Amino acid sequence: MARWRPDARERLRQAALELFAEQGFAATTVPAITARAGLTTRTFFRHFADKREVLFADEAEIRAFATEIMTTAPTDEPLTMIVAGLRMLAETHFEGRKDDLRQRRAIVASDPGLRERDQHKRAMLAQVTRDGFRARGLDPLRASLLAETAGTLMYVSVAEWLDTDDGRRLGDVIDTALATLRTELEDLPTSNGQVASKG
Amino acid sequence: MARWRPDARERLRQAALELFAEQGFAATTVPAITARAGLTTRTFFRHFADKREVLFADEAEIRAFATEIMTTAPTDEPLTMIVAGLRMLAETHFEGRKDDLRQRRAIVASDPGLRERDQHKRAMLAQVTRDGFRARGLDPLRASLLAETAGTLMYVSVAEWLDTDDGRRLGDVIDTALATLRTELEDLPTSNGQVASKG
Repeated sequence: MARWRPDARERLRQAALELFAEQGFAATTVPAITARAGLTTRTFFRHFADKREVLFADEAEIRAFATEIMTTAPTDEPLTMIVAGLRMLAETHFEGRKDDLRQRRAIVASDPGLRERDQHKRAMLAQVTRDGFRARGLDPLRASLLAETAGTLMYVSVAEWLDTDDGRRLGDVIDTALATLRTELEDLPTSNGQVASKG
Repeated sequence: MARWRPDARERLRQAALELFAEQGFAATTVPAITARAGLTTRTFFRHFADKREVLFADEAEIRAFATEIMTTAPTDEPLTMIVAGLRMLAETHFEGRKDDLRQRRAIVASDPGLRERDQHKRAMLAQVTRDGFRARGLDPLRASLLAETAGTLMYVSVAEWLDTDDGRRLGDVIDTALATLRTELEDLPTSNGQVASKG
């Protein structure tokens, strides 16, 4: 275990991101990553199943975070839980990493397999949230709606935050997104369904 | 072209669904599907790129439907457009096909590759909707929020509708889902973010 330098994981991640950005995801090999990081392939495979998983290194941690929030949050008002959880996640896992996350986003966008993997990550997080609400006694429709809306708020807010450089914190963008969605829903006429029709 | 019987596509789809349900998706071959349908593999490949795409046969049509709604809807109230579009989609593509759609859902759920493909379909439809709202002049945050919420309403409502047998139409489940989401958002205290914290 002494050979396992504590910063190896992060050095491998940085080296991989650099190489993916420089020469593309497909052209980057694990030996190239380890050479750049000054580590062995053996060390690489201690930390990551393959080069793709480097881009999803935080998934297990975020999943654990979501599970903990769903289990321990002292409130029973679901949307309050969601907003508090997302703001906490924003501070602990996103704030201060904007350049890094922009780079990751560009790499994921460049490859169909990575995009599918990213959609899978989002679906998994919605599932954890849904299961948490079910365990708290919410009916399936409500649990699913809230879990999906949590995912939407996070996904849309992160995109907006990465697309802009106006100094807003991600947590504030989440609040804006929530307020926007609320306004859209409030403005909808109650008797809907007949309003729009193909001309 | 005379050999191309007009119902070939639907016969192949039915044969494939039956075989996927009987023996599993992985174990089903294209020759087995064509044998069951009484057609040639050549005919199969006129209609589908591979056996997986049989399960996504309606994607192009639904995409075209979504694009047309986004282009031609006479209203500028986005959520009204969404609800009207989803209700129309429910009537034209879902109502009356419950058993068929339940079977398809079970098959997709059984295979990780099919689940990823299904998530991709959903992401593609959200993208079409988002692009439509952008073309109508909505800012990126609002366009994304509305497109994602449209996907949520459809996805959650279809799941609820397939899970129940109480005679409700899918369009009515969509209305219930929308009303539920609206209530959740209305009930949220305005100064949020500090309410829930880990104990």
